[in-house]
Amino acid sequence: MAGIKVHGTPFSTAAARVLATLYEKEVEFEFVPIDMRAGEHKKESFLALNPFGQVPAFEDGDLQLFESRAITQYIAHEYAPKGTPLIFPDSKKMAILSVWTEVEAQKYDPVASKLTFELVIKPLMLGLATDFTVVEEFEAKLGTVLDVYEARLGKSKYLGGDCFSLADLHHLPTTDYLMGTQVKKLFECRPNVSAWVADITARPAWKKVVAMRAH
Amino acid sequence: MAGIKVHGTPFSTAAARVLATLYEKEVEFEFVPIDMRAGEHKKESFLALNPFGQVPAFEDGDLQLFESRAITQYIAHEYAPKGTPLIFPDSKKMAILSVWTEVEAQKYDPVASKLTFELVIKPLMLGLATDFTVVEEFEAKLGTVLDVYEARLGKSKYLGGDCFSLADLHHLPTTDYLMGTQVKKLFECRPNVSAWVADITARPAWKKVVAMRAH
Ligand SMILES: N[C@@H](CCC(=O)N[C@@H](CS)C(=O)NCC(=O)O)C(=O)O
Ligand SMILES: N[C@@H](CCC(=O)N[C@@H](CS)C(=O)NCC(=O)O)C(=O)O
Repeated sequence: MAGIKVHGTPFSTAAARVLATLYEKEVEFEFVPIDMRAGEHKKESFLALNPFGQVPAFEDGDLQLFESRAITQYIAHEYAPKGTPLIFPDSKKMAILSVWTEVEAQKYDPVASKLTFELVIKPLMLGLATDFTVVEEFEAKLGTVLDVYEARLGKSKYLGGDCFSLADLHHLPTTDYLMGTQVKKLFECRPNVSAWVADITARPAWKKVVAMRAH
Repeated sequence: MAGIKVHGTPFSTAAARVLATLYEKEVEFEFVPIDMRAGEHKKESFLALNPFGQVPAFEDGDLQLFESRAITQYIAHEYAPKGTPLIFPDSKKMAILSVWTEVEAQKYDPVASKLTFELVIKPLMLGLATDFTVVEEFEAKLGTVLDVYEARLGKSKYLGGDCFSLADLHHLPTTDYLMGTQVKKLFECRPNVSAWVADITARPAWKKVVAMRAH
């Protein structure tokens, strides 16, 4: 069967990255919920889509992909004429955009994901206690990263360049979770970062992803 | 001044990734050594090239980039007609390649870098003792990743597809270091992985990077 399918849950930051991209691109898709509590992502049928047993998994006709950032790149390139561009045609501008998608993956996500795990997933989804020693250590690391962002966003409206792009979008799922925690203060005390977060989290495409969590 | 400059040291896995790409593409460049022991990467002039104060940093005329995987992507696209292709023109084949560059960055590198740090950097470069509890923990993690690679390389000659590509190349610096350690056994006991490592580490472009370390 042709058509796009996303397998996952909107609560997953990695799956939410893909969902936000599809809504920005105004590309139709079918959402296939994966029951992670029941371990559905470790069953043979799902491992055939992602051998690491993690959400999301993605299909576009007979093309099967996993790893959220590979999927968003594919959607942005393959459906270039539709919706928000998210990538830049100029090769040098695209190279700068890639620097900041790498910064998200290499510098921001490892720290933001750890804080999300401690402050959101553990207390609200797993019923476990937050380890505040870990939180303190990773808040310091996040501060260092956000100092670089504050300087960058003083020179450029968005991280990847003048327009909203994948470089910003990739930050949405973890950042949105963190804005509901004590870590919010690290964003708010940096004016450029604070304005950027307000801008990107207000995008209608992102609001659609958040709305999926209410079902 | 026009021309490509790479700032770093060939001992850095991230810098070596960029150097290997330039040699594969047969693109001329100037290598600018950074004295990390003297803290040159934390000085203002270097921070202007990479605000995170890490090697490599890269220039192509007035374009300035950092993050090794953003740099390799740029080189592969910008100098597409030269040397080894490293990327695929077909969008679906390129999407699969991207899945495996993401797997390297998300699954392989965090584990391989930690093992490289414990078994190479600490004893040989910093004069510190290896923590074998950490080694054991990360060897188990690496085994899980290599099981997925063993299956993948049973279906496809290279990780990204039928030809050598950035997906393979990105693995070279950490893998080559690990082949000189006890972790070698994890590669050798998996026949497809073992053949793949032998193949990619024998590439003339990679040998040129290793030779740079002798100076
Ligand atoms: N690098 C992967 C990360 C995927 C990931 O960590 N998914 C999580 C949910 S956000 C998951 O499936 N966790 C379950 C598990 O690891 O068993 C991506 O970006 O797609
Ligand atoms: N994600 C970065 C990693 C860069 C990196 O970790 N560089 C190391 C050498 S391999 C470095 O400069 N370390 C010194 C430091 O962090 O202060 C990349 O791929 O370029």
